[in-house]
Amino acid sequence: MKKINIGLIGFGTVGNGVYRTIRDNGSLISDRYNIQINLKKICDINTAILKENCEGPELTDKWKDVVEDPEIDTVIELIGGLEPAKSIILSALRNGKNVVTANKKLLAEEGGEIFKAADENGRRIGFEASVGGGIPCILALRYGLAANRIKSVMGILNGTTNYILSMMEDSGISFSRALKEAQEKGFAEADPTFDIEGYDAGHKISILAMLAFSKRIDFKSIPMEGISKINKIDIKYAREMGYVIKLLGIAKIINDCADVRVHLTMLPDKHPLSSVRLENNAVMFDCDKTGPITLYGKGAGGDPTSSAIVSDVLHISETTAPGPVFRFSENETKYLLPGERISRYYLRIHTEDRPGILSRISGVLGNFEISISSVIQEEVHDGHVPLIILTHEAQEEAMFSALKEIKKFQFVHGDVMLIRVEDNFISGEQK
Amino acid sequence: MKKINIGLIGFGTVGNGVYRTIRDNGSLISDRYNIQINLKKICDINTAILKENCEGPELTDKWKDVVEDPEIDTVIELIGGLEPAKSIILSALRNGKNVVTANKKLLAEEGGEIFKAADENGRRIGFEASVGGGIPCILALRYGLAANRIKSVMGILNGTTNYILSMMEDSGISFSRALKEAQEKGFAEADPTFDIEGYDAGHKISILAMLAFSKRIDFKSIPMEGISKINKIDIKYAREMGYVIKLLGIAKIINDCADVRVHLTMLPDKHPLSSVRLENNAVMFDCDKTGPITLYGKGAGGDPTSSAIVSDVLHISETTAPGPVFRFSENETKYLLPGERISRYYLRIHTEDRPGILSRISGVLGNFEISISSVIQEEVHDGHVPLIILTHEAQEEAMFSALKEIKKFQFVHGDVMLIRVEDNFISGEQK
Repeated sequence: MKKINIGLIGFGTVGNGVYRTIRDNGSLISDRYNIQINLKKICDINTAILKENCEGPELTDKWKDVVEDPEIDTVIELIGGLEPAKSIILSALRNGKNVVTANKKLLAEEGGEIFKAADENGRRIGFEASVGGGIPCILALRYGLAANRIKSVMGILNGTTNYILSMMEDSGISFSRALKEAQEKGFAEADPTFDIEGYDAGHKISILAMLAFSKRIDFKSIPMEGISKINKIDIKYAREMGYVIKLLGIAKIINDCADVRVHLTMLPDKHPLSSVRLENNAVMFDCDKTGPITLYGKGAGGDPTSSAIVSDVLHISETTAPGPVFRFSENETKYLLPGERISRYYLRIHTEDRPGILSRISGVLGNFEISISSVIQEEVHDGHVPLIILTHEAQEEAMFSALKEIKKFQFVHGDVMLIRVEDNFISGEQK
Repeated sequence: MKKINIGLIGFGTVGNGVYRTIRDNGSLISDRYNIQINLKKICDINTAILKENCEGPELTDKWKDVVEDPEIDTVIELIGGLEPAKSIILSALRNGKNVVTANKKLLAEEGGEIFKAADENGRRIGFEASVGGGIPCILALRYGLAANRIKSVMGILNGTTNYILSMMEDSGISFSRALKEAQEKGFAEADPTFDIEGYDAGHKISILAMLAFSKRIDFKSIPMEGISKINKIDIKYAREMGYVIKLLGIAKIINDCADVRVHLTMLPDKHPLSSVRLENNAVMFDCDKTGPITLYGKGAGGDPTSSAIVSDVLHISETTAPGPVFRFSENETKYLLPGERISRYYLRIHTEDRPGILSRISGVLGNFEISISSVIQEEVHDGHVPLIILTHEAQEEAMFSALKEIKKFQFVHGDVMLIRVEDNFISGEQK
């Protein structure tokens, strides 16, 4: 039986999950694959926690003990963030180890250097755990859909924000109350900024875009909007019009330009991503040969993420190619200018309740050649009338210029809420 | 650049798709993976069709020209059925070729022999295309979820039947009319028996069960029920109760016994498989570490299936292990006796419209300790009243015994429709 010696660095929720998965399913894995996974060494700066939780592996608080151990084949990096994670991974690769990591921030922001080092050292790097927790979406993209040109990637990539939006939809509660509930139930951090403002989803869509399009993606090029501006009435009106609001990471290639972004999106309620609820994640790849393929499951947590890590360890041990993890195009990546994007829009505009207002607002939209698909105007609400407009397709540049004009009207109060609409896919069929 | 020489045997819809995929995306694949796929030889008994459609590869009508060609690395078998497909695959393996196949019938019914031959000859066999068309579900199961104990597999594995059920649901039409429409649109064969009666889904769930549980599954052990007995009122009543009716392949391990079957199933409308519509397929794996993981997309057709085949060719060329495709447990597989299964049931019983009938039927159910969860009894319908009963959990044996008694009542007309209810999963959460 083949034996793989593993060194694990970072013993938080996911590290603990990896320890438990190897303990619980190690013999099942041996029976099934004829491979014995031996967790030889675990490193964490908190050795007390290690001593309390781990039985069997050697314990240390120095990561060099792991990456310099000649018997270790594969190093699992679970510290997260840029440093010392980057030094650990580079040292491990230089010492001839394969690496498995869940570090989305490092791969999204400095992946080029990491992948180059793996290539130069003839080693492999597994990073299934960096996107979508236990969902094997990196595997699907790299191998399962290898024969396809990938047209787009769309994903619900952050469990915290999806949980909050689901709570708002199910219970009709406000954003701040849903956030509080999510925090109480452990689905949101005490400081939730990183999730709420879309950075986490940004890291993940950046990694998926790199793989899908074989292009370097500059993380700083990705516009990220979070969910904190959403009002429960947006969710209510969306539902009345047959839509669901989700925070999506979206990556497309348009005229050879990369278009990668994170923002609230209205999806038709029969869209495969619309039924993804609570803390679940899902990714939809639209491919030239297969059409849309969607993968759906738990996107975070110690156990699901440990599944991705241990599965990567096994897959790496069965694959030869020491070559590039993926090959970037030699050409410099061009990015779609934000104003060039085309989509439909949902607008919520708070106005005074007097005659002629709809005509003036629709007049401005018309001047920018934006035509209206539907309008909802209801009873007076806090003295202001929320005017809801759904448009046909228009360039973002035209839409932003029109909004600038609309906001100048004295009868318009507060900010205008804009949500992009993606309705090119219904239940797997392209319209 | 690495070069893989391919020999393709069988030039039907899928064979043509493979030819087109290599032609369309060959250079994209070379750029991405540094692998050149060279379609060296194509074999079909209809050489006229080959000459008309293929430019480049050598053409032949003798499969031995392919499997005996020393330059060919990988043979793609797309003839289907038992023979000569089996001889082709065995010859190819003995001649040192890897094999990629879409042949679900052969793998389900005689997979043991095929996998043993691959093992003995140190070759690999790819069969992603045998289940779920372009959906990378075999890859997910073998590699992506490798660290998990698989608790169950449930899938919508046949596009024809799902198309018919979707049409019945959307348009309220009868089974026979929906079948006719599916035939007109090319989603059902002229002789649809193989799809309609569940055999196709049976082959596919058998392959998934083998992989999921590392057990040999005797195809003849799988009870298969099709969709031809369904009435549009079943779909209507199911919807009123918050359910959708799907034809599912289901595989579970219960008390170390395999429970593999195909039948109509009622799913809560928030279940991940409920939103899978028309010709799409989906598979849900319930795993101990990840929880439920669902994959969803087009389950048939030349292009999607060719994606699975060409992706397999690439994956095989990157993996070393010449060893077993998967290792079966040495123990003989035990099967759950059909009567031992536990589930909830939907019953449609046509009775005369007179007092006391519900009490007598529920009395029989009570005698077998089957308790009723809800009842619908509407206006008279063709002189008979359809009585709809949803039960709590009960053993199938008790249910079948109760039905035998119920059918003896003179006031019961025609057959009783029984549909099993699976509601342990709602939107990815286990209840």
